[in-house]
Amino acid sequence: MARIVTTVERADAAICAGFAELGVATAHEAQHRTGLLDHRLRPRQSGRVVAGPALTCEVPPGDNWMIHAAMEQAQPGDILVVSPTSPCDDGYFGDLLATSAQARGVRALVIDAGVRDIAELRAMEFPVWSKTVSAQGCVKETLADVQVPLVCGGTLIKPGDVIVADDDGVCVVPRETATEVLTAARRRAAMEEEKRRLYAAGRLSLDVNSMRARLKEKGLTYE
Amino acid sequence: MARIVTTVERADAAICAGFAELGVATAHEAQHRTGLLDHRLRPRQSGRVVAGPALTCEVPPGDNWMIHAAMEQAQPGDILVVSPTSPCDDGYFGDLLATSAQARGVRALVIDAGVRDIAELRAMEFPVWSKTVSAQGCVKETLADVQVPLVCGGTLIKPGDVIVADDDGVCVVPRETATEVLTAARRRAAMEEEKRRLYAAGRLSLDVNSMRARLKEKGLTYE
Amino acid sequence: MARIVTTVERADAAICAGFAELGVATAHEAQHRTGLLDHRLRPRQSGRVVAGPALTCEVPPGDNWMIHAAMEQAQPGDILVVSPTSPCDDGYFGDLLATSAQARGVRALVIDAGVRDIAELRAMEFPVWSKTVSAQGCVKETLADVQVPLVCGGTLIKPGDVIVADDDGVCVVPRETATEVLTAARRRAAMEEEKRRLYAAGRLSLDVNSMRARLKEKGLTYE
Amino acid sequence: MARIVTTVERADAAICAGFAELGVATAHEAQHRTGLLDHRLRPRQSGRVVAGPALTCEVPPGDNWMIHAAMEQAQPGDILVVSPTSPCDDGYFGDLLATSAQARGVRALVIDAGVRDIAELRAMEFPVWSKTVSAQGCVKETLADVQVPLVCGGTLIKPGDVIVADDDGVCVVPRETATEVLTAARRRAAMEEEKRRLYAAGRLSLDVNSMRARLKEKGLTYE
Amino acid sequence: MARIVTTVERADAAICAGFAELGVATAHEAQHRTGLLDHRLRPRQSGRVVAGPALTCEVPPGDNWMIHAAMEQAQPGDILVVSPTSPCDDGYFGDLLATSAQARGVRALVIDAGVRDIAELRAMEFPVWSKTVSAQGCVKETLADVQVPLVCGGTLIKPGDVIVADDDGVCVVPRETATEVLTAARRRAAMEEEKRRLYAAGRLSLDVNSMRARLKEKGLTYE
Amino acid sequence: MARIVTTVERADAAICAGFAELGVATAHEAQHRTGLLDHRLRPRQSGRVVAGPALTCEVPPGDNWMIHAAMEQAQPGDILVVSPTSPCDDGYFGDLLATSAQARGVRALVIDAGVRDIAELRAMEFPVWSKTVSAQGCVKETLADVQVPLVCGGTLIKPGDVIVADDDGVCVVPRETATEVLTAARRRAAMEEEKRRLYAAGRLSLDVNSMRARLKEKGLTYE
Repeated sequence: MARIVTTVERADAAICAGFAELGVATAHEAQHRTGLLDHRLRPRQSGRVVAGPALTCEVPPGDNWMIHAAMEQAQPGDILVVSPTSPCDDGYFGDLLATSAQARGVRALVIDAGVRDIAELRAMEFPVWSKTVSAQGCVKETLADVQVPLVCGGTLIKPGDVIVADDDGVCVVPRETATEVLTAARRRAAMEEEKRRLYAAGRLSLDVNSMRARLKEKGLTYE
Repeated sequence: MARIVTTVERADAAICAGFAELGVATAHEAQHRTGLLDHRLRPRQSGRVVAGPALTCEVPPGDNWMIHAAMEQAQPGDILVVSPTSPCDDGYFGDLLATSAQARGVRALVIDAGVRDIAELRAMEFPVWSKTVSAQGCVKETLADVQVPLVCGGTLIKPGDVIVADDDGVCVVPRETATEVLTAARRRAAMEEEKRRLYAAGRLSLDVNSMRARLKEKGLTYE
Repeated sequence: MARIVTTVERADAAICAGFAELGVATAHEAQHRTGLLDHRLRPRQSGRVVAGPALTCEVPPGDNWMIHAAMEQAQPGDILVVSPTSPCDDGYFGDLLATSAQARGVRALVIDAGVRDIAELRAMEFPVWSKTVSAQGCVKETLADVQVPLVCGGTLIKPGDVIVADDDGVCVVPRETATEVLTAARRRAAMEEEKRRLYAAGRLSLDVNSMRARLKEKGLTYE
Repeated sequence: MARIVTTVERADAAICAGFAELGVATAHEAQHRTGLLDHRLRPRQSGRVVAGPALTCEVPPGDNWMIHAAMEQAQPGDILVVSPTSPCDDGYFGDLLATSAQARGVRALVIDAGVRDIAELRAMEFPVWSKTVSAQGCVKETLADVQVPLVCGGTLIKPGDVIVADDDGVCVVPRETATEVLTAARRRAAMEEEKRRLYAAGRLSLDVNSMRARLKEKGLTYE
Repeated sequence: MARIVTTVERADAAICAGFAELGVATAHEAQHRTGLLDHRLRPRQSGRVVAGPALTCEVPPGDNWMIHAAMEQAQPGDILVVSPTSPCDDGYFGDLLATSAQARGVRALVIDAGVRDIAELRAMEFPVWSKTVSAQGCVKETLADVQVPLVCGGTLIKPGDVIVADDDGVCVVPRETATEVLTAARRRAAMEEEKRRLYAAGRLSLDVNSMRARLKEKGLTYE
Repeated sequence: MARIVTTVERADAAICAGFAELGVATAHEAQHRTGLLDHRLRPRQSGRVVAGPALTCEVPPGDNWMIHAAMEQAQPGDILVVSPTSPCDDGYFGDLLATSAQARGVRALVIDAGVRDIAELRAMEFPVWSKTVSAQGCVKETLADVQVPLVCGGTLIKPGDVIVADDDGVCVVPRETATEVLTAARRRAAMEEEKRRLYAAGRLSLDVNSMRARLKEKGLTYE
């Protein structure tokens, strides 16, 4: 017994686009250093930044059947988020599924397991964040849930939440708070831009951020 | 005491060339998902696909002496397969050995340990699949066997077996069954080509592969 | 209580430049296979070779405050060496700190923890060797020591020691012995150049290094 | 900014007692193989089975301040569930905190990090499931949330949910479904008791579970 | 398609009994430091030494169906050797299967994956060597081979080979060479007994084994 | 070329005895949370606390020759500290070496690698802290240094420094500061004893340590 939830409210496309301009580190800081997926989920390409609503898909170990079923639920701009129900490094996703995903408008894949056909995925410019790369194929025998809340990379993700992914990793921003987090993230980015200018001019962060007094108070000495 | 077997029957060159066109995932599927080496053996370059007969070489931990002895056994097209007798991450193989290997016609290296001079190996375009990269050098003190069956990346490899390696990892196809596996692999590749065309046109794999009835029978429900 | 040592004698710039021409594997061999940092500290870019005196900085887990304080101690050519006082994978260093480091003449970062803003660091051409990449940010609450001897990647590093880093990893050469190690490293490089020429011409290392007699004496047999 | 939620509804004590009689594997099966924490969270003693409502506590890396704050929220029978906001192996909890926990009626600790004073914890018979053991102590500098939903061992845990822990690991049963899961778990335990009797008498599970026909249908052959 | 081989020649019971008296380290040394399984396969109890012929069983990831089929092939004294076809940490084997195994005379389990009901297995005194402990249960959907050569813990094991297991780990001795290896192992044990007597009397191994001359020749100096 | 330093000044026996009464966590705190070895070095027995001067011994990977040479340098009460020059999990030390070590008065072994004959070591009551257990034996071919400063478990240890080891792990206290650290450790132990009494009586650590004001100031709120 398993279920596919078909009525998922997705994060707003403009909000997602906003996060794609700022990247993972800024989004993560803007929501008080929460929402990061385990850093072992690595980008399998270089220089891509994506953001979009999560299309969540549980899979049994060594079985990618539900990814096929999930594809029918895809809407343009979705990011497919796949998590095995017990730890598994098999190659759940290759160039055939990527072809189907691109045709359905899926923007990227985040998977707490392995992928394969990695050279083809790069050639297709279909971005992937995964725990590993493995040619080990899957069977199609057992059901699991699609579009339900799941834990991926040690972090809770609900269908429709904003997924942000770049070379630093993957972050989730809950749909409910995405607007306010984006505002905070933009404010932070602006502030960082100003600091970058000062640092590039040779100013020390100790002075720019007025850290000297507090360092001394904590007991820092110079020899 | 150790031995070097000098009379090894190698997989046919045309068979090897056939596998190099198809890659690891297809070879692995064509022999019923067997023969894959541990996915922690990663390519140390991007975009290379190679296939050739295994030239097997055991090494003691931290000792690369037998690789020197193995080089004399090389025939053009061979893929050198090195496995330590107990787990080791040292850098067994660098640009000097690679120079010698290229001069002898060795096509690539697969090693369940470390390599070094990795920038030079890339510049030379000598492809390597290894467990790690480490500058840690080796001594030359202890013997081990060359051209005997060994376990590399958790998989049994016999001298002369076909090694296939690409960005997805490494797969071994036993010499005895290589012809029939290649036939099955080509059949599979043709079938995948057809599916790729349908998926790219937006058809769902649920329909292309007639999965809906079996999903329902197993108890899948839509909410 | 913590301290910053301001009077650090640095390895000579010409010595450092010499090591940058030879790379990690040669430096490591020239000092009898010692000084290598754990191979899990990986380059986060490709093809860079750097060498310079260590600017050492301890950090508490999840706290990058002392890196800010260390920046004031930087002299042009320094390599910043950061090690957490207990194991941590957080992203201690991003593009803001890198901007400041470049402005102060810091040549590179070696860190036994994570970095972030990795795409920006690559764009800035600021080279980094780290245990991981993680967007997880840090607090600024707790002190630690700067410019004291520390263990980074399992190896002792003293302030001012020569750090050599390339695609193979990172090696430390103590300042006191750097001149003699450089001499030995240059001798080794010359000898390897000669061997490379012979191997490229098809000569076997068994013969070039006269290994056959000792192999036989140890009991190697051919079948 | 951080918060402590003081109004947590806890799972019923009788329900918890029921799970303590059945153990982790049975609870996990009874809720369709969900709810298990990562198997790297190991018991630090032998032969203990506990169940109780979760008292959840987030902690920054290397900082155990919030565990002190969480102790005030404890009610007799609670199981303290601690998870760092970024991965950390430090020893967050030792014999002093255990003394306080026992005095407040806390039944056990589940922590996705390290503990210390492990010999004393065993002597006190205070049961612990942890990722590791480490003497590395913590600071008290940074806030985090107490009694909020968190992810521990890769699994979502809400305050008041039932935690079941034994030598096999740790499982969470949501408070809302605990009654029905317990009923299913008891049914399963009874069914297993009957099978155990048949197997002990030498009957094969192939026959007891009528597996032969389906094995044959899938293509199993005997040679 | 999968097969069960029913005609397996097993190592002699007296030979197995001989190895059980000597243990893993001695068997491993007696066959020139070969045959050891990966040291991550740990005993799940203390102080047991067992030896017996391998009953080999492949399993798909997360699927323990074939262990049920393998049980019918068991003969008294067999050691069940289970290896997943791709890496998996699930709990494949618990107290029900152990009850059946004991009833059929199976002596022990060696598994390159997880087990569960570990408290019950200890109470039953059914010895287990496994990669991990996990309550994660398995499905029964996919076939694999029984009584064929497989790789377990990185080492090749053929049906009927001698498995030796104790607190140090697990070693396989091929059936064909078991008699001669046992003879060598007994000789080694006798020699060690003599050395133990001398060392206990305070004699140095440097003298008992006449190592001083060779150490000096290699360049050892005393300061 | 390698050397054995024969003139090592050892930490005072009474100081060592003092640390053995207090254990690792207290020693580590008393020297400002420094000196801890990597927590992956685990005790291979339960309930032992030892302290004594370090007898340091480097070993090449897979080669335990220098442990034999180190034994001659042992003085009663020494703790043998062994670290491989590149990472290795082999079983360097078994019951024969333990017999010799006990005969020479060596109190314990700390090794950043594997041990074997673990059942015998327990029976002999010779305590061991090691990275792993492995039956994999060693050769005797290559030299390394004895009684020189080395890094073990990621921490610098000098010959004669105090090693403290218990169920929590291993800590080193430099010989030069051992007296003052012991004084601080005793003060800390006394203070903890007082806290333990208060906590056992049900007092909260929030009150005993006056934490409430600072928590509030940092922004903690109760809901």
